[in-house]
Formats: sequence, structure tokens, C-alpha cells
Amino acid sequence: MERTNYQASNCSIARTLQVVGEKWTLLILRESFYGATRFEQFHQVLQCPRNLLSERLSKLVDEGILERSEYREPGRRTRHEYHMTETGRELTPILLALREWGDRHKADPAGPPVLARHAGCGKELHVTLQCTAGHEVTGPDEIELVDGPGVLALAPA
Amino acid sequence: MERTNYQASNCSIARTLQVVGEKWTLLILRESFYGATRFEQFHQVLQCPRNLLSERLSKLVDEGILERSEYREPGRRTRHEYHMTETGRELTPILLALREWGDRHKADPAGPPVLARHAGCGKELHVTLQCTAGHEVTGPDEIELVDGPGVLALAPA
Repeated sequence: MERTNYQASNCSIARTLQVVGEKWTLLILRESFYGATRFEQFHQVLQCPRNLLSERLSKLVDEGILERSEYREPGRRTRHEYHMTETGRELTPILLALREWGDRHKADPAGPPVLARHAGCGKELHVTLQCTAGHEVTGPDEIELVDGPGVLALAPA
Repeated sequence: MERTNYQASNCSIARTLQVVGEKWTLLILRESFYGATRFEQFHQVLQCPRNLLSERLSKLVDEGILERSEYREPGRRTRHEYHMTETGRELTPILLALREWGDRHKADPAGPPVLARHAGCGKELHVTLQCTAGHEVTGPDEIELVDGPGVLALAPA
């Protein structure tokens, strides 16, 4: 694969970043992953401007990553809560991969603030790269990048 | 783990985003992962302002993610090239997790533009979540989040 012969316009990394590649959006998803569902729960932890939070939550609903539903506490007005859709849950490896690199390279001397475990057995979770034959891949040297079916050639100069 | 009892200030996801959580930075890393080493190679694909590219490359060198070295072609002045360090290579799961979600949810009808394979056997690569006992975890419902050694309690109000 000769990189400069192809358009980067349909790159899947860039397209994912267009949806979630903004600091507050990823932090909202982190809180959703950590169990937040209500506006005030997101706001309490993130302390970002309320209109920004509201706009980002709506964008995530539009993208099918969060699902908005209504709830109503006795004597109060109807409010919204936000739950991850299946499409949103599929972002989990991105969040855990970000977390793992930060745990390794940016944690305080005391160690990581949060541990992620397999609920079934209690052992620590890691993001791994595996091929469909079950081999574990440890770095880019073991990865081969080839043209996919959607590759776009550069227009002739 | 009761989320609102703890500070989010030392969150490893946020700290990773402080380093790489900016669109151009992640796209520079993508190009490095795809084999770019020289300023002009990055610039040709990314088409971002040159001073921005230069500033982001320097930041990645300062963070120990890229390593800058010199090269000189006959009759030309000395220039720099950029290679991923081991710390940079450890970002691979983040890039591949972004790619995989994009391939699944944002690819053109023709399919993904790039396929990643295990160089050893040619089979397609995937990002997986595994516990140290070897169980594969498929979603957040199977993940338990617990306090880590570096957890910071909120100061009393």
C-alpha cells in the first residue's frame, strides 16, 4: 500500500473523530460508560458550560450513540435521561484503549484511579489486538495494511 | 464505585486526551502508523497549515511519542524525520479501535478503505477486550469498575 496514491478522505479513523473526536464528547461518553444517565450527573463531574453539554448530548443522540428517554420524579417536570445504544457501547474499546495508555504513561505515582475488571472472574481487563485466527499482535511491526474494498485512488494530477 | 465521590482530575482517559486528543495530532499519528516519517509526507496527506503540523510534531517529540532524527539527501540541507517510539507504538490500539468503529459505522457502501491484517498469517485484525485470565469481554455489561490505587476522594464540601 503506497499511502500517497490514495485519498485520505474516507479514512475510518478521521470519520470516527468527526463523531467523537472532541474532548468533551469523549468525556461525556466516559461518564455514560461510568453510569451517568442524567444531565446533572454529567454536569456535576464535567463542570463544562451547560449549553455545551446540552449540544454535545444532542449530537450523540443524533449520531445514534446515546438514546434519549424521559423520566419524571414525583412533583417535578419531565426530564431526559441518556443511555448508550449498541452503537455507543461499541465505542468501549476506544475508551479503554485511551484509559490503558494513560494508566501506563500518565498516572500519578500512586497508580491508576480506576481499575476495569472482567465482571465474571474479577481479573483485570486489557485491550488486545487479535487476528481472526486467534493470534495476539503486540505492535505495528506485526500489522500489515492493505487496500480495502472502499479504497479511493487519487485523481490524476 | 460511586462516581460522584471521586475527583475526575486524575482520569487516565482525560490525561491521554490531553496528549493526543486533538484531531490533527491523531491524524499525524495515523500517518506515522501508516509509514510517514518526513514533514512533507505528513503534509501531503493532511494538507493542514505547515506551522500547525510543525507545532504538533514538536509536541509529540516532547511527549516521547515520536523521535526526531536527522537525514540529509545529497546536495540538500539537513532535515528531520520522525519515527514512533515504543511509547508511541503503544497508541496503536487507540488508532485501531477508532478505525474499527469507523469501518463499522461510517464506511462508504463499498466498504472500508484499509484492512489491517496480522502480518504473520494474513488474517484480519480486531481490537478485543480480554481479562488476564483470557476471557473475552464483549461489552460494558461485563466490565466492573473499581477504585484503583490512585483514586482521589473529593474534598469535603
